[in-house]
Amino acid sequence: MKNNIPSLENLLAELEKMPGIGPKSAQRLAFYILGLPEDEINKLSRAIVEAKKNTKYCSKCFFLTEENPCSYCQDESRDSSTLCIVALPKDIIAIEKANQYRGLYHVLGGLLSPLDGMGPEALRIRELMERIGKNNIKELILATSPTAEGETTVLYLSNLLKHTGLKITRLGMGLPMGLDVEYADEGTLVRAFENRKEI
Amino acid sequence: MKNNIPSLENLLAELEKMPGIGPKSAQRLAFYILGLPEDEINKLSRAIVEAKKNTKYCSKCFFLTEENPCSYCQDESRDSSTLCIVALPKDIIAIEKANQYRGLYHVLGGLLSPLDGMGPEALRIRELMERIGKNNIKELILATSPTAEGETTVLYLSNLLKHTGLKITRLGMGLPMGLDVEYADEGTLVRAFENRKEI
Repeated sequence: MKNNIPSLENLLAELEKMPGIGPKSAQRLAFYILGLPEDEINKLSRAIVEAKKNTKYCSKCFFLTEENPCSYCQDESRDSSTLCIVALPKDIIAIEKANQYRGLYHVLGGLLSPLDGMGPEALRIRELMERIGKNNIKELILATSPTAEGETTVLYLSNLLKHTGLKITRLGMGLPMGLDVEYADEGTLVRAFENRKEI
Repeated sequence: MKNNIPSLENLLAELEKMPGIGPKSAQRLAFYILGLPEDEINKLSRAIVEAKKNTKYCSKCFFLTEENPCSYCQDESRDSSTLCIVALPKDIIAIEKANQYRGLYHVLGGLLSPLDGMGPEALRIRELMERIGKNNIKELILATSPTAEGETTVLYLSNLLKHTGLKITRLGMGLPMGLDVEYADEGTLVRAFENRKEI
């Protein structure tokens, strides 16, 4: 957009780089920002810089944290014999919201995706093997998304880990809560039938 | 969201203040930001601070600008006898994209909205009257949105300005380009019939 206001154009360009932010959203955000009082602007810009500066990866599970190890790895009330293996830190946040799982985590840092050049060496699989070797772990829960990349990763890991004798599980699949059957895709319905439970 | 990462929680809180950004979008943006290299983070945070610092309102038309008066008010090739009256600076950006209007602008700074406490004194109506008094203006185009507030503002301004003898127009109303008639609301269809044109 040419509007003869270089600093606004620059802000729009930066905002449009963000995922899910198109030109219209960028404009809405930019005008919101321009309308903020100066101290709010500074709070926003500081929050951005400091979130990056203050967070690092936990040296054990590779979740984001300000202190090392992270609060989950430090929490002795959690079951350290179970590892939930996720693709990215945000998956842990989603799982913790469900308040169901009480074991530890391991963040792979992505999923296998040969087409995008994401091979096993790009993921934290070596670190996972080391954790399994050093700690008394009994169950691994593969909590990757049921997408092509997630399935590939599950296949790869289950092959790699089957010699360990560990219990290896993956998250159950079926209809998500609140979804009308008529809107469920074929793949989901296939899994829902396969995984039907007696009542 | 409680995740034991104060700087991430703080960033999420700041992002969620933005219009159209709910918890899910804030999380997507926050993880995007955490994944940026440091110089990109600094570019983003600087763009935010500098857009605010470098822009001010044009003292003539109250558009946003880095130099005063703004590029439109300085542009002698524009028709200074026509003023297009808009609610907010972003309306000027939308109008300029259409590349149709070649006169000057006047930004009211909002629309009349008695329920929200926006009375005439909250808008730049005094400044508009001064501009009309001092400059050789022939036509005023009321380019407010056809909403309750926009219509109220048109009514108020047309009453206030009718003694001036200026030509006062407002933007034409009817079907927007690309809209299926079946999806047009009643108000739009009423205007489209009223404003039908012989072909």
